[in-house]
Amino acid sequence: MNSSSPSRSARSAAQAPVVVIAPDSFKGSLSAEEVATAIGDGIRAALPEADIRLCPIADGGEGTLDALMHAGGEICRIAARNAAGNAAQAAVGLLKNGSCVIESASVVGLTDAAGTAVAVEQRSTLGVGDCMLAMLDHGVRHFLVGLGGSSSNDGGAGLLAALGAKFYDDAGQLLAPTPHALQKLARVDVSGLDPRTKDVRIIAMSDVDNPLCGEHGATAVFGPQKGVTPEQVAALDKVLNHYAQVLEQALERKAAELPGAGAAGGLGYALLMLGAEFQSGAETVADHIGLDQALAGADWLITGEGRSDAQTLHGKAPFIASQRARRHGVPTTLLSGGIDRASLAELQGSFSGCFSIVFGPGSLQDAIGNAPELLRASAEQMARLWSTAAQAGNADRN
Amino acid sequence: MNSSSPSRSARSAAQAPVVVIAPDSFKGSLSAEEVATAIGDGIRAALPEADIRLCPIADGGEGTLDALMHAGGEICRIAARNAAGNAAQAAVGLLKNGSCVIESASVVGLTDAAGTAVAVEQRSTLGVGDCMLAMLDHGVRHFLVGLGGSSSNDGGAGLLAALGAKFYDDAGQLLAPTPHALQKLARVDVSGLDPRTKDVRIIAMSDVDNPLCGEHGATAVFGPQKGVTPEQVAALDKVLNHYAQVLEQALERKAAELPGAGAAGGLGYALLMLGAEFQSGAETVADHIGLDQALAGADWLITGEGRSDAQTLHGKAPFIASQRARRHGVPTTLLSGGIDRASLAELQGSFSGCFSIVFGPGSLQDAIGNAPELLRASAEQMARLWSTAAQAGNADRN
Repeated sequence: MNSSSPSRSARSAAQAPVVVIAPDSFKGSLSAEEVATAIGDGIRAALPEADIRLCPIADGGEGTLDALMHAGGEICRIAARNAAGNAAQAAVGLLKNGSCVIESASVVGLTDAAGTAVAVEQRSTLGVGDCMLAMLDHGVRHFLVGLGGSSSNDGGAGLLAALGAKFYDDAGQLLAPTPHALQKLARVDVSGLDPRTKDVRIIAMSDVDNPLCGEHGATAVFGPQKGVTPEQVAALDKVLNHYAQVLEQALERKAAELPGAGAAGGLGYALLMLGAEFQSGAETVADHIGLDQALAGADWLITGEGRSDAQTLHGKAPFIASQRARRHGVPTTLLSGGIDRASLAELQGSFSGCFSIVFGPGSLQDAIGNAPELLRASAEQMARLWSTAAQAGNADRN
Repeated sequence: MNSSSPSRSARSAAQAPVVVIAPDSFKGSLSAEEVATAIGDGIRAALPEADIRLCPIADGGEGTLDALMHAGGEICRIAARNAAGNAAQAAVGLLKNGSCVIESASVVGLTDAAGTAVAVEQRSTLGVGDCMLAMLDHGVRHFLVGLGGSSSNDGGAGLLAALGAKFYDDAGQLLAPTPHALQKLARVDVSGLDPRTKDVRIIAMSDVDNPLCGEHGATAVFGPQKGVTPEQVAALDKVLNHYAQVLEQALERKAAELPGAGAAGGLGYALLMLGAEFQSGAETVADHIGLDQALAGADWLITGEGRSDAQTLHGKAPFIASQRARRHGVPTTLLSGGIDRASLAELQGSFSGCFSIVFGPGSLQDAIGNAPELLRASAEQMARLWSTAAQAGNADRN
């Protein structure tokens, strides 16, 4: 352990370890930064001499903007339509390196009551396009777009419409970029597409490999959690399939089958059609916040999320963090709101100890309501055990 | 740490620690031995080379017989009346050293449906006397009597009656040794009291200091949990007070004011009248099971109970175990079904980490139903963190 700083004193890992705290947000409850702060307070209570490095993380979904801004940058408030197409405000981030961060979850997200007041077939990603357009005007040419947590299933037609594409029915009537309207799609005019989109670099942050259509497509796999009924799946999938055929003919480019096209209700597809590269959200965030630098010379990584299960090991932020830590020879402990017991055997392959924040039977409501205090207290218990065991390990050598 | 065996290898506490597992029972759910076994399985899963020493403990109440028998001995099944005075069977323990263990909780206990089918004023400790008499016949002269968890409030009149004392009203009518009948008590005849009771040594195992009567007495303090209504308290207290006056005159001995007289509904008083010594239940059990021997050279003690709170620090078994461990320089971690968060700050003074067996929000019923698996899994997480931290501590020296 800690091979990068062999000269540290004999008591360092026991009494004054370097602890990196890199949790994801507890979705719907606490931001990753709030989680990290609470854990840090608990560690400090047990190990007052610890060197604590807070690195809140995210996976491209809700909380991605916050996590990226933790490393520094500027928040811009932009007039951008919500998923229902109504006027609203969105926050985008301008990083120190000039990149712009757009988090779909915060513009057209599932947790936005106003945006989701209309049914999924009436929603669009116009707001994401509004953000991109405003930042193009601002001179930005490098975009990081987080795709998780959107409420839309429009194939990204909204994004393209905001950037100048026009969708028509066979009577030449202009159509809204919603699944409902696009049922009548006959033709798309891309001549008005903002020419600056040719000069941009877009990183789409997503952990989703799904194609746009079919049984593994956006509608079939992610539609239901957005309100798509079993009866609607086939019809909405057909709308996106036809939309892609029309669009691909107009742009002389293909992307519907590419991995990630089905992310964010097909917003991934539209970004691919604009030349976007796909990257793991968690990996991209880890790179931007300097997780590797924080892990250099560290003794212990603590990560976590609202709830951990076998899905955690499929590219979620705590798993990516644990992989980074392993490369640095740093052990990782998981501290989550709840942990699926049935997945423990699998999780243990990546985490040296998987703990929940709760101290006994009780309601989810209670755990959410008291999450900061529970995080602080449970992290303190972990650190007390750490300290005790590290001293025992140290004493072995005396 | 581990000063008693300084020659152990450098990796010992990290990879092959000596772990003493000394939990109390999870009352109403698992015996202390079942808890210890489950924890041991979890530790072994994470630390296959660990030297694991199972020492289930108890505090004089429910589970005391089991814990004492874990160290070896013989169970005797005895015809002994239940708290309702009806024929029943009781188990008593015959230890290797010839001492007999009688657990009041298992003879006239609160969890015995048949014994508690009658109201508290109709219950007695006759069964405890039946057990003692049978074991006197068996040649036993040394008794360990666990006082916690009884359902009776008879001042131990039942015990004395079974051993030959006779209680009369002022018409010379023989009375049952119940609070209800003893309202009419006028005279006690102790001439028939078994003469062998003069030659016995009785250890009463209890953590209760209460006198027999008054505002800190058995009826006022412990009556309510046995079904004494607020209206009954004064009357039942008066019965015990009068009973003690009559008895003390007859035996020319006083005990009603002594600490512990109020234990087990006054059974403590009757035992004191027979010359019993009071000892902490947890300390006595710890002595008998050889906890100190197990702790010699150990690296880590794990203890626990169904639910831990500030009361735990008032002589409960996990606290006594932690104190013993401290004397041996061994750190103690608490693993309980649930932990009262408000008491964490206090508990931390005695435990290096306080953990619950649950992995997230959920019902008490679920936790109880899955307690063995939860214990195993949570102990494994603790051991994995232990191992990681001990290696980090060890590596400090490299």
